Amino acid sequence: MCGIVGVVGVSPVNQSIYDALTVLQHRGQDAAGIVTLDTQGAFRLRKANGLVKDVFALKHMQRLQGHMGIGHVRYPTAGSSSASEAQPFYVNYPYGITLAHNGNLTNADSLRESLYLKDKRHINTTSDSEVLLNVLASELNQCTSSALTPDAIFDAIERTHARLTGAYACVGMISGYGLIAFRDKFGIRPLVLGERKSLSTHESKQIEKTEYMVASESVALDTLGFKLIRDILPGEAIYISATGELHARLCLEETQLRPCIFEYVYFARPDSLINGVSVYNARLNMGKKLGEKIAREWKEVEIDVVIPIPETSCDSALEIARILNKPYRQGFVKNRYVGRTFIMPGQATRSASVRRKLNANAGEFKGKNVLLVDDSIVRGTTSEQIMNLAKEAGAQNVYLASAAPEVRFANVYGIDMPSVTELIAHDRQLEEIRQLIGADKLIFQDLEDLKAAIREENPQLTEFDCSVFDGIYASDEVNEAYFNRLEAIRKADKLAIKASHDVENLDMYNEG
Amino acid sequence: MCGIVGVVGVSPVNQSIYDALTVLQHRGQDAAGIVTLDTQGAFRLRKANGLVKDVFALKHMQRLQGHMGIGHVRYPTAGSSSASEAQPFYVNYPYGITLAHNGNLTNADSLRESLYLKDKRHINTTSDSEVLLNVLASELNQCTSSALTPDAIFDAIERTHARLTGAYACVGMISGYGLIAFRDKFGIRPLVLGERKSLSTHESKQIEKTEYMVASESVALDTLGFKLIRDILPGEAIYISATGELHARLCLEETQLRPCIFEYVYFARPDSLINGVSVYNARLNMGKKLGEKIAREWKEVEIDVVIPIPETSCDSALEIARILNKPYRQGFVKNRYVGRTFIMPGQATRSASVRRKLNANAGEFKGKNVLLVDDSIVRGTTSEQIMNLAKEAGAQNVYLASAAPEVRFANVYGIDMPSVTELIAHDRQLEEIRQLIGADKLIFQDLEDLKAAIREENPQLTEFDCSVFDGIYASDEVNEAYFNRLEAIRKADKLAIKASHDVENLDMYNEG
Amino acid sequence: MCGIVGVVGVSPVNQSIYDALTVLQHRGQDAAGIVTLDTQGAFRLRKANGLVKDVFALKHMQRLQGHMGIGHVRYPTAGSSSASEAQPFYVNYPYGITLAHNGNLTNADSLRESLYLKDKRHINTTSDSEVLLNVLASELNQCTSSALTPDAIFDAIERTHARLTGAYACVGMISGYGLIAFRDKFGIRPLVLGERKSLSTHESKQIEKTEYMVASESVALDTLGFKLIRDILPGEAIYISATGELHARLCLEETQLRPCIFEYVYFARPDSLINGVSVYNARLNMGKKLGEKIAREWKEVEIDVVIPIPETSCDSALEIARILNKPYRQGFVKNRYVGRTFIMPGQATRSASVRRKLNANAGEFKGKNVLLVDDSIVRGTTSEQIMNLAKEAGAQNVYLASAAPEVRFANVYGIDMPSVTELIAHDRQLEEIRQLIGADKLIFQDLEDLKAAIREENPQLTEFDCSVFDGIYASDEVNEAYFNRLEAIRKADKLAIKASHDVENLDMYNEG
Amino acid sequence: MCGIVGVVGVSPVNQSIYDALTVLQHRGQDAAGIVTLDTQGAFRLRKANGLVKDVFALKHMQRLQGHMGIGHVRYPTAGSSSASEAQPFYVNYPYGITLAHNGNLTNADSLRESLYLKDKRHINTTSDSEVLLNVLASELNQCTSSALTPDAIFDAIERTHARLTGAYACVGMISGYGLIAFRDKFGIRPLVLGERKSLSTHESKQIEKTEYMVASESVALDTLGFKLIRDILPGEAIYISATGELHARLCLEETQLRPCIFEYVYFARPDSLINGVSVYNARLNMGKKLGEKIAREWKEVEIDVVIPIPETSCDSALEIARILNKPYRQGFVKNRYVGRTFIMPGQATRSASVRRKLNANAGEFKGKNVLLVDDSIVRGTTSEQIMNLAKEAGAQNVYLASAAPEVRFANVYGIDMPSVTELIAHDRQLEEIRQLIGADKLIFQDLEDLKAAIREENPQLTEFDCSVFDGIYASDEVNEAYFNRLEAIRKADKLAIKASHDVENLDMYNEG
Repeated sequence: MCGIVGVVGVSPVNQSIYDALTVLQHRGQDAAGIVTLDTQGAFRLRKANGLVKDVFALKHMQRLQGHMGIGHVRYPTAGSSSASEAQPFYVNYPYGITLAHNGNLTNADSLRESLYLKDKRHINTTSDSEVLLNVLASELNQCTSSALTPDAIFDAIERTHARLTGAYACVGMISGYGLIAFRDKFGIRPLVLGERKSLSTHESKQIEKTEYMVASESVALDTLGFKLIRDILPGEAIYISATGELHARLCLEETQLRPCIFEYVYFARPDSLINGVSVYNARLNMGKKLGEKIAREWKEVEIDVVIPIPETSCDSALEIARILNKPYRQGFVKNRYVGRTFIMPGQATRSASVRRKLNANAGEFKGKNVLLVDDSIVRGTTSEQIMNLAKEAGAQNVYLASAAPEVRFANVYGIDMPSVTELIAHDRQLEEIRQLIGADKLIFQDLEDLKAAIREENPQLTEFDCSVFDGIYASDEVNEAYFNRLEAIRKADKLAIKASHDVENLDMYNEG
Repeated sequence: MCGIVGVVGVSPVNQSIYDALTVLQHRGQDAAGIVTLDTQGAFRLRKANGLVKDVFALKHMQRLQGHMGIGHVRYPTAGSSSASEAQPFYVNYPYGITLAHNGNLTNADSLRESLYLKDKRHINTTSDSEVLLNVLASELNQCTSSALTPDAIFDAIERTHARLTGAYACVGMISGYGLIAFRDKFGIRPLVLGERKSLSTHESKQIEKTEYMVASESVALDTLGFKLIRDILPGEAIYISATGELHARLCLEETQLRPCIFEYVYFARPDSLINGVSVYNARLNMGKKLGEKIAREWKEVEIDVVIPIPETSCDSALEIARILNKPYRQGFVKNRYVGRTFIMPGQATRSASVRRKLNANAGEFKGKNVLLVDDSIVRGTTSEQIMNLAKEAGAQNVYLASAAPEVRFANVYGIDMPSVTELIAHDRQLEEIRQLIGADKLIFQDLEDLKAAIREENPQLTEFDCSVFDGIYASDEVNEAYFNRLEAIRKADKLAIKASHDVENLDMYNEG
Repeated sequence: MCGIVGVVGVSPVNQSIYDALTVLQHRGQDAAGIVTLDTQGAFRLRKANGLVKDVFALKHMQRLQGHMGIGHVRYPTAGSSSASEAQPFYVNYPYGITLAHNGNLTNADSLRESLYLKDKRHINTTSDSEVLLNVLASELNQCTSSALTPDAIFDAIERTHARLTGAYACVGMISGYGLIAFRDKFGIRPLVLGERKSLSTHESKQIEKTEYMVASESVALDTLGFKLIRDILPGEAIYISATGELHARLCLEETQLRPCIFEYVYFARPDSLINGVSVYNARLNMGKKLGEKIAREWKEVEIDVVIPIPETSCDSALEIARILNKPYRQGFVKNRYVGRTFIMPGQATRSASVRRKLNANAGEFKGKNVLLVDDSIVRGTTSEQIMNLAKEAGAQNVYLASAAPEVRFANVYGIDMPSVTELIAHDRQLEEIRQLIGADKLIFQDLEDLKAAIREENPQLTEFDCSVFDGIYASDEVNEAYFNRLEAIRKADKLAIKASHDVENLDMYNEG
Repeated sequence: MCGIVGVVGVSPVNQSIYDALTVLQHRGQDAAGIVTLDTQGAFRLRKANGLVKDVFALKHMQRLQGHMGIGHVRYPTAGSSSASEAQPFYVNYPYGITLAHNGNLTNADSLRESLYLKDKRHINTTSDSEVLLNVLASELNQCTSSALTPDAIFDAIERTHARLTGAYACVGMISGYGLIAFRDKFGIRPLVLGERKSLSTHESKQIEKTEYMVASESVALDTLGFKLIRDILPGEAIYISATGELHARLCLEETQLRPCIFEYVYFARPDSLINGVSVYNARLNMGKKLGEKIAREWKEVEIDVVIPIPETSCDSALEIARILNKPYRQGFVKNRYVGRTFIMPGQATRSASVRRKLNANAGEFKGKNVLLVDDSIVRGTTSEQIMNLAKEAGAQNVYLASAAPEVRFANVYGIDMPSVTELIAHDRQLEEIRQLIGADKLIFQDLEDLKAAIREENPQLTEFDCSVFDGIYASDEVNEAYFNRLEAIRKADKLAIKASHDVENLDMYNEG
């Protein structure tokens, strides 16, 4: 998963984009990048591996001049190369274009081939985002007019849409023109548009002007004092010129909002509003639904206390406790300052342990029947260790409830998941999973309840991408051949990681 | 405030001390340091400004060889120099001694003078911890025996106690001998002792040996798999020889346990057990007491929801909600990735804003009467901004409850507090404070209730250092002259900060 | 001035290019860069400000995989922006092309404009080398064939020549094809081609293959064990395919060898062979000619000792001493480890002094009439300080001889010179210059003697670019308007340096 | 070998010490350090591995406040640990003392033992300089007077002399007092004293004051504008108080000047005056003596050209050429920018080659009988490679002359030499050496001629330490047992280097 942001302002945007990226940092902690467009039409770039606060020092910020810019925080996408690449990306032909992308193209391989053979475009990394940028560049190059009109840009995006499949929420800049943003036809990844009135000095008069921001989540708007206008629609593109005029056009005929349901379950910040749904409220609803299922199905089970596994599940757990009429307690304390495990010569590798991250308030476990609540269960290895932590703290019985259904299938739209075979629920039934985890009882949310929990906040939201739960993918090319190729890449990556070891960056741009 | 740790093990201790420091990192995020004693009797040191995870890289860990070591995380102590010094400190005469200290000496100035004049000892920093180490070194040097016996060491600590006033929990190492730890006569700062059985290879046989750890908080023991033996007593010293023998002696005749009450209110981790009291339980009790006061005094006040200001106050807030029978809601979301505000040439300084750190889940505020709960109110400036956040999110009435009483006086025992004149409750009454903060109603915990909340968990705990609340200091030298001197240093420090700006370290050891 | 190198080998080329760059480092100490082409057709880049030995660490070298690569060391070109850009440069369309350039385009401004308007190509830096690369890319894009043949490449270079004026010796790579190198129609900057036989494993048999290297100077070939084939001709281009086939074609009809004479005077290493001339021998000849002039013109002057100003002038000085039959002495010692002058707050800036760089062996000066020999005199400020050094060391009379004629005009072909008005010989006659410098006597080489000194080693070398001495420029566009524009840029640069101060890199690629 | 400097000035000394260290950098390029004493009596330290220009950044210089300070550049001393320690060293008891040392103690091991057992002083490194500092500290601690008088300090140095054997030129500071400097009883390592008149502002009047500098070589005085007063005498100590009063006393009864002859041969800068001898003149004399020997002994040998192996031998070679009446030519060009050889996985280690450092001007070798001149021959491996270089460049016969006699024995007084068994002349005669090197003829300077060459400049200089040539050591403890111990440490060091690899610093102070 990644987070993206773009701002067209009336004053320098470097700090605003920086702040927005810190607010979106939960969407990606691997790498961060900002590119601005200065008044001479030159791009100013800084990107590197690391957290936003570590990537940008004063000297970089001073370099990032301009009233327009875009930013990106990165999480490695499933199937991407291990020696991964920071964004935004840049091509100088035509016009000079930069782009930041959240999502995953499912036809990146065939695009890569056609770009090489037909478009004579060199792709230097394994990133599908570089592919996407080059498709866009290639289509923008088809514009025959001497200057790019808004419609010429939208036409190019329309042709770009026609070549891409998969998930993509994008923000970019064209030197000499302005900022663009667009979203795939299903709107799988979120993207919102906001505005802020600011005073600008023009011919020594102060006039009010509108500044625009696009961002993965509305919380970035809130923090910067922007007002949410609306979500960018599936298949829609917007173009904001350097002078601040906003243009919008639907660039696809057939579109259908089908957002990734995992954003609500786990990924997005609770204080965000995505497709008209408060993530926080959706999570409360998930808790309510799951609480009702527990009340219904575990009538005989004695529960003394409801304890969330920090921290996404806290909101759901609170509602479960309310429904069950049991005390909610913060029985686990999270270590905020986890460090590394150093491998010394002659020492055995220590197993990475949840012990370094969580500690129990023993009093809440001793002799009790505890219901632990997690937002979802993926590999199940952490769950197993947490069961042990609870038992060691003296719990009599440990029950586990997952606010999401069983994760059984791969995500191909931008969420980094382990290999399907590593998913504990893949090809396994409830009892088998329970035994592996070591819970005394185990319960999952029903998929229909999950959908209902979200739809309750916006009844018009009829469809979701729930592929990790139900294995249904929006597009045809996501078939068995696709998954086989993915698995092969994943294996090669693991080897590459072993071989490269300390080689942090292999691409053209990142040097550090 | 600072955190300290010491380990005598049967295998390399670098990773254990590193892990313990990450668990104690909440006690100090400014600087970190580890020193180990290798098998040749040489000290290996690494210390620098920054978080534990940033200060120690692989090359440093490889250097930190040895089966015995101590560590420190630092928070600048009230009245210390701004260009502050990382610990542990080292002197090479006599024997080679290293020391890490949590607390604050109230007679550091006069000690500094006598060390210079009488002991011919050069103190190169403004740190009272370097003073403390040199007093100890001076007293150890009085031992006339050819080798140091446990009793000779304890005698030296006894003489050291006689020269020191203030708060000090210390851990140190003497080359050729072993690890020492001691605590001032009031036990103001916490210090616990733990043990772990480990297998050691001796003459190709595996034998079980006992490893010891001393640490500021028991949670460090838990995470590393050590069992809590007990708190080190006020005035007690322990000495663990290189071969692992534990010696303990009370080195003061008149002692009285009088722990800093602020550890329970705010400073310590909830999952720690300090002086026999679970901090978590103490905070629940604080919530209960405060809830009862609210129920008693605000009978007419309509409250729709109880919302903690994350995150120390969550446990108290949960109990308040239970007592008041109102829903507890996580209405605020904390930004975990706050970055810097860069000052660009020609740009105005932006006021540091709570907006960068907190965001509201609007749904929990809109049209509601909300009771916000904070652990304590110090300057009040953050509280004021939070009132605004809640109002902007649509709250009808915003009430504020503080789990601690009014903070009215200076802390001289190691907690970094603003100048007394900056404390919002200093010389002000409730109504005046309420107006400044902008709360619709405001309530503080009573001091007796606070004490009772802690004492409930350990009835033998009769006395506390509550000086920030009641202005009563344990020792005579903390008088008006002392505070005047402190205030003068504080002012000089502020000037020094302005002047030095980027000069991170001025001392002998930290180079970077 | 800059140094360039390119290698097509049978094994990894990173270390070879690195070594070659250290040997060419005298041509540029500001920045260094290497790009290799790996077996997947991806470019691997590392470039940054600094010396070769500081720019490339192990992790960078590990990244620079491939059997083909190019490298660059940079010296800021006259008129280029102060916040300068490291090379090689890269464009991804068409094919993926990288380029390193030594020289200076005199029509960069108009090219920049036509690239923007006609070619829709975005130039993100102020570097004329990025302009050159984009012209090349644009012309390569005109090739209509599906694959690039050697002739298609040479055609594109022919069209590129048609658009460029100025000096350029270039080496580049086209992904999927191979390495190219070409030189402007006057061959102003040097470029040589060499080969080396190496064993390559092919289908488990060892076969001998030819590896090729192009480099600014033959000394890079020597050090790496390559044999000099020949200089690349003015207007010639070579193309070496990935499989190691060498193609060459003259891509311009009218060419004339007219090398920069300053390479022989000062810039090149003495052990290089440029256009068939040993630089070392040329310098000996310069000494001989100048010695003869001194003998002829200063008959009455008593000279006790001939002392070179280290270290380019040592070879000439040796011949002067021989001709004059006077002892040659190393009277100056150069400080090899010059550091910085730090400006402390409240301290006056110290004048940059030759004293930090040179010290006199007093015995060689005391009471003597010394003839100092320098390779050339540019600003004259250093000469003046050296006169003082010699006088302070006790010299009775100090005479100064310059192995080059008076430097009176600007260099527009890649040598960084001060502004014309700062040249001490600009608009001044001998006596005036002598007085400013403070020499007791002063003599310059005659231009015809200088040419003869070089031509003696290769009689076919009839023409030179001697513009800094005679003001004659090879191309029409170097006129008054051009110089005015240059001067304006230079002034803007100085302001920019003041403003940017610490902003090391403003371009897309350099981050560090 | 190391270089040391100390300054007592009337204004900040950081830049002066920095500049002096760059001028002394030829004495040690491994590490650099400066400590100053600020006006509050606190030491300010910066030391790290690397060149002076790399170790000190602006922030370090800003920290190095004070009008008094000392500096050190380090070259690893024979027998010291590989993971070596930067200087100056510091102890805080008594008074606070810092020290920088050039030389080597031959009784460091027994001192280390007595410091531990009798003085209870902890030595944390393997450096003999830390031992020396602690002996001094221990003796200063014997002073019973309440304040240190000059005589008390000199008495302590006298007692220190009594405990030390070996070579030591030292400079140090005592907090609260001033700067001290002293030299061993043979004056093996050089140390000079200089002065400079400067204006100081005192009660708003400008008064002229004397600033003092001590330094390893007079060239440091020259560059900083100090005038040489004299060499510090063997066994003499000087003490300069903070107020600028100079005290001097001979602190040993029996002394004898016996300087290391290798300083004149190779180590010192030619422009230095050591013990009244111009190093430059001494080298000219060495050339003259050796030229005469060649003329005498090689009557039948035909020599076409004399070529120095750059660059220490240039001065001698010039005189040889003059005596032989043959042309002197700079036939070799030194690469000033040598980089690293990177070991890539799967690649064979390339033999470190002189090819990376030297290149031949072929014209001076082709078909000629060349006489190469080197300052000395140690291992002989470089000589062998240079013979090959000359032959490959086309030389007919290559003769080699060494300006120093055969190096046959270990240096125990501070020059880092390979193990005795690695010395090519150890236990070998001329013909055998010639064959190993591959020279057509070989000649060494006679030891008596070498001594005479120096003595010619100062007839009072009767004795030298020539131990590497004649195996005669000044003190008894340098016996077979000593060398065996040394060899054992050397072997352990080599293992340690392999084991530690990247562990740059193991001591207390250096962190970076």
